[in-house]
Amino acid sequence: MEKIYSYAQLYEFTVNVFKAMGCSDADAALAATVLISADARGIDSHGVARLSGYVRLWEAKRINATPNIKIVHETPSTAVVDGDAGLGLVVAPFAMQVAIDKARQAGTGWVSVRNSNHFGIAGYHAMMALQHDMIGMAMTNASALVAPTFSVERMLGTNPIAVAIPAATQPAFVADFATTTAANGKLEILQRKNADAPLGWVQDKEGRDTTDANALKQSGALLPLGSDREHGSHKGYALGSIVDIFSAVLSGASYGPWAPPFPAYVPMPQNMPGEGLGHFFGAMRVDAFRPADEFKQHMDNWIDRFRKAKPAQGYEKVLIPGDPEREMEAARMKSGIPVVEAVAEDLKTVAQKFNINF
Amino acid sequence: MEKIYSYAQLYEFTVNVFKAMGCSDADAALAATVLISADARGIDSHGVARLSGYVRLWEAKRINATPNIKIVHETPSTAVVDGDAGLGLVVAPFAMQVAIDKARQAGTGWVSVRNSNHFGIAGYHAMMALQHDMIGMAMTNASALVAPTFSVERMLGTNPIAVAIPAATQPAFVADFATTTAANGKLEILQRKNADAPLGWVQDKEGRDTTDANALKQSGALLPLGSDREHGSHKGYALGSIVDIFSAVLSGASYGPWAPPFPAYVPMPQNMPGEGLGHFFGAMRVDAFRPADEFKQHMDNWIDRFRKAKPAQGYEKVLIPGDPEREMEAARMKSGIPVVEAVAEDLKTVAQKFNINF
Repeated sequence: MEKIYSYAQLYEFTVNVFKAMGCSDADAALAATVLISADARGIDSHGVARLSGYVRLWEAKRINATPNIKIVHETPSTAVVDGDAGLGLVVAPFAMQVAIDKARQAGTGWVSVRNSNHFGIAGYHAMMALQHDMIGMAMTNASALVAPTFSVERMLGTNPIAVAIPAATQPAFVADFATTTAANGKLEILQRKNADAPLGWVQDKEGRDTTDANALKQSGALLPLGSDREHGSHKGYALGSIVDIFSAVLSGASYGPWAPPFPAYVPMPQNMPGEGLGHFFGAMRVDAFRPADEFKQHMDNWIDRFRKAKPAQGYEKVLIPGDPEREMEAARMKSGIPVVEAVAEDLKTVAQKFNINF
Repeated sequence: MEKIYSYAQLYEFTVNVFKAMGCSDADAALAATVLISADARGIDSHGVARLSGYVRLWEAKRINATPNIKIVHETPSTAVVDGDAGLGLVVAPFAMQVAIDKARQAGTGWVSVRNSNHFGIAGYHAMMALQHDMIGMAMTNASALVAPTFSVERMLGTNPIAVAIPAATQPAFVADFATTTAANGKLEILQRKNADAPLGWVQDKEGRDTTDANALKQSGALLPLGSDREHGSHKGYALGSIVDIFSAVLSGASYGPWAPPFPAYVPMPQNMPGEGLGHFFGAMRVDAFRPADEFKQHMDNWIDRFRKAKPAQGYEKVLIPGDPEREMEAARMKSGIPVVEAVAEDLKTVAQKFNINF
């Protein structure tokens, strides 16, 4: 059911696909690095499983393989970047680098991006800040799949937030999560297995909580983090909204139900209020607040104390955000990355299309 | 069971209490304004219900009525403020003003605060940015009541996040929420009524989900937003952690399980790694990204579209974050603020202590 590929195999293939789309060597390498970081870290929904989706968006002329990505407005600590419909996988690292450069000068840097596309995993971009002793943040809006509290209409994407915080000897704190109860990728896995979803993940088209993992495909909606009003879904709805506004209303991208869909066969929304998808990035120099060594030692202390929090019965230990993905990456870089058959077949189709090896 | 007071009555009484504690006239007025904004907006757990708690902290010498609040470190877009153990109700507006001033110059301003105390409702401080056409953010750490996913130990406070975003003709978007499934104030109401809590709000000391609203008092813990792992509690735990780190590790306040307790009878934690409670504030000038009028018109469009999202059966309409509190404020400014008997009695005791009228 699964085949194991090495990181290098998937990386090289992905570089070749992006080159075949017309990306420059540098852009193809960057886009592949960002995309495959998802497979390495165990976020299988956001890696090579999406490669054919990017190709179809390019075929539909919704992705520009040779974009002129540029800063269109700036202040000492902010910028707006126009992605020129480029791959989000390339636009996002450009914009995050602008945030880092701003932070070096002004203490912090905040960049809102318009006219972009799906950017892979948010965590990759946030983590770019770590090597500079900065806190990194990344978020993005996305195709509308989520209903606000009290609604049956899909108004928001899964709108993830990533925050990466450096430590000294401990590994960095890296949170990266959809602002829904469950990421869409988890639902897709259940759909493939024809298995039920837990209550609280998805509602049907009437707004009723359901265990039917296929309800989302039948005009249902994903639920905001919190699942229902009594359990705080209005908070998940607020978080998803904040991501939408920072990413798309601040930048001039298309927001809410008008966010461009990832599947190329879905028609673009009518009367879009902005251009493309939007992202938002932040970088804060730790020593803009206190000496970096001091901060990182306290982060070590924070992490160590939380790791030692008394576990509940049946659980081994408390995890620090980023632990599971880092452990997965270490294992997969050594033993390879499993790719399910359906995705492997999909990649073979892409290979044939461009007449490249897989 | 309840008595109705006018805003002016509660405000004047609160000013007199803070003056009796030795606050300057200006500080007493500011602290009262922040505190009573909670009662006006319907967040009864954070208003006059807490006044006697502040008095007890002052009596225990954990609150300094005449603090020397100052900036101890800064860059063009950041600052660290030392609250000198002052009332958070005074320290927080000072720090938020620094963020706003920084934003005016650098586009954004970010201020982390140490050596402070409970700051009232986060929303008040975030909303200070609105009149400057800025997006405002406020967060704070708090006494540890929340167990991380997989743990039985109280490691985090309810650590709220507030984000205020200006619009043109629509009222502002104002999200203000604890990073737990339910705010502690909601649990306190159930405790007073001896009523059950929904599953997913609180766990007992063994880490089992329980409907017993008193479990928190019996070594139980509040649950992070998401309630359990299957419903995304690791995301609520990550959010609460980010608030803790931004507020306290960045500033040099005391973090995690070492955050100073609000009840003055609870001994201070041993080996505190920093000074007092911590807060974090942000201000982003909207026109540091795009022209303010353009942004605010798109916010109107965003808000209007979300208000029109199709409601689920049995629900009248979709709410925009801030709607309930604003409607409550309009009603209470007109008809008065109900104060439950236990709180009114508590205020009478405070009045007697200082020999002032109530």
